[in-house]
Amino acid sequence: MDSAAVKTRLASEAVRIENFLSSFIKGETDILAAAPKGLLAAMEYSLMAGGKRLRPALCLAFARLCGGNDEAAMPFAASIECIHSYSLVHDDLPAMDDDDLRRGKPSCHRQFDEATAILAGDGLLTDAFALMVSCGKTIPAERVLAATAVMAECAGSPGMVGGQFLDVGFTGLKDLDLARLRAVHAMKTGALIRGACLGGAILAGGGEAEQRAADAYGRALGAAFQIADDILDEVGDAAVLGKPVGSDAALGKVTYVSLLGLEKSRELAAAEKDKAVAALLPYMEKSEGPFLKGLASYVVDRVQ
Amino acid sequence: MDSAAVKTRLASEAVRIENFLSSFIKGETDILAAAPKGLLAAMEYSLMAGGKRLRPALCLAFARLCGGNDEAAMPFAASIECIHSYSLVHDDLPAMDDDDLRRGKPSCHRQFDEATAILAGDGLLTDAFALMVSCGKTIPAERVLAATAVMAECAGSPGMVGGQFLDVGFTGLKDLDLARLRAVHAMKTGALIRGACLGGAILAGGGEAEQRAADAYGRALGAAFQIADDILDEVGDAAVLGKPVGSDAALGKVTYVSLLGLEKSRELAAAEKDKAVAALLPYMEKSEGPFLKGLASYVVDRVQ
Repeated sequence: MDSAAVKTRLASEAVRIENFLSSFIKGETDILAAAPKGLLAAMEYSLMAGGKRLRPALCLAFARLCGGNDEAAMPFAASIECIHSYSLVHDDLPAMDDDDLRRGKPSCHRQFDEATAILAGDGLLTDAFALMVSCGKTIPAERVLAATAVMAECAGSPGMVGGQFLDVGFTGLKDLDLARLRAVHAMKTGALIRGACLGGAILAGGGEAEQRAADAYGRALGAAFQIADDILDEVGDAAVLGKPVGSDAALGKVTYVSLLGLEKSRELAAAEKDKAVAALLPYMEKSEGPFLKGLASYVVDRVQ
Repeated sequence: MDSAAVKTRLASEAVRIENFLSSFIKGETDILAAAPKGLLAAMEYSLMAGGKRLRPALCLAFARLCGGNDEAAMPFAASIECIHSYSLVHDDLPAMDDDDLRRGKPSCHRQFDEATAILAGDGLLTDAFALMVSCGKTIPAERVLAATAVMAECAGSPGMVGGQFLDVGFTGLKDLDLARLRAVHAMKTGALIRGACLGGAILAGGGEAEQRAADAYGRALGAAFQIADDILDEVGDAAVLGKPVGSDAALGKVTYVSLLGLEKSRELAAAEKDKAVAALLPYMEKSEGPFLKGLASYVVDRVQ
């Protein structure tokens, strides 16, 4: 599948995912019906601010690849976007990256206030787990539990939160080497992407081989994604990024580009793409195979 | 069971709960083995700073009341303390209550820094869910999912986070009436206590009647607990509280005492205690009945 087709497909997935998210975060479903409207408004502001909805799209694609269906997996897929969104809200806080803008709009604590942003993040994170386990209504409980365990691990201290902790500590550190940088990003950015793929496979009853493929694909795609992000931060368009170009450099952050230069970073991104594609080889006859292969190219090709 | 016996029993429960929590938060079990040690240190600092461990003790007691055993329910019970601990870390942040002290020690962001405190809270919250679903190893998955759903609801936007959002908004608001104050506290403090009771009952396979009793007891105990807390903030001993007496008043917070005065607040706490005890009436022949009845008295009697 070429990049244009991937983009179209991603856009149509995003519409369905956003329809679900919007209804959820407005309190139209049981889970959030009793939540304070003011809090939901702040959560909605950040959750519905756009984005490619890559993580839930990956989760749905792997669920389908393993024989599952969208309707059953959607709450789980959507919950991953809630977790992603909370992480952005907390990362933007003054004590963290201190970002005034997110996707071209005021970040949550600028639009509301800091207390609201902290609580909106806490709410998105906790409610994500309520959404996840709600899948038990249509999917066997053992699978839902296993997928939730993966997601908690990928989002928590051994995953995204741990990666963010290391990343904050490494800001301004000049002697961070490539191995450490990769390890930090595998936790900070990679874990949630990997968890989306693996969680989707587990939820749909994928066997060991499918789960291994989802894990390997997610791991490689996550790495490719982060390298591409670092390249975009260096050479991208502020309007597309929704934040100033070169903001990582201004913060003194070690990035793939600052460590390796542009050319070698592009090579590394391409190598990760190849790993992702290789993991999918046994599944190219399945409808989701070509999409997921194309998606890996799409992520990397935009910076080549 | 009289207050002295309840205190002894709570203390011995706390030892067992803290042994489990300590091993968990040091990364000695699988779940946190890969988490950064520096992050775990901040999480451990707050999680192991003391406290009565009331919520996990309630969870274990209701699990036993419904025929469950401690070993199986312990990860779930302990996860509630992780959630309680994260909420204290985030509540103490400068943008929230701006508390320098917690249980007589520097609060997390004073001991470390603000970014670390935000992430330690995020980690405790996320890892709590990993701990919860790990109960699926010994308890039927359906029960674990149902109990996790209750806990996510009680901790999230419709529960504790929502209550904290409303509480922050009401600071300095003089015209908050009793009905609103009760509603806010039922979310902010009550929900987690109620969830601990109900979650324990569900986990152990308690039937509808047991679940209703756990819910009613938890609801009343949570209310009694908050009223007692407001009274203690007014008349308590700073050394016992671990924070300055009168700090709520200094923040301009509406409390039961500021609304009703001391005498009527004490009466209201006693009425909630009676409700809690009434919910347990059918279970007084079970070993946990007298303990839970005594616990309700213990919470309220310390302020009478």
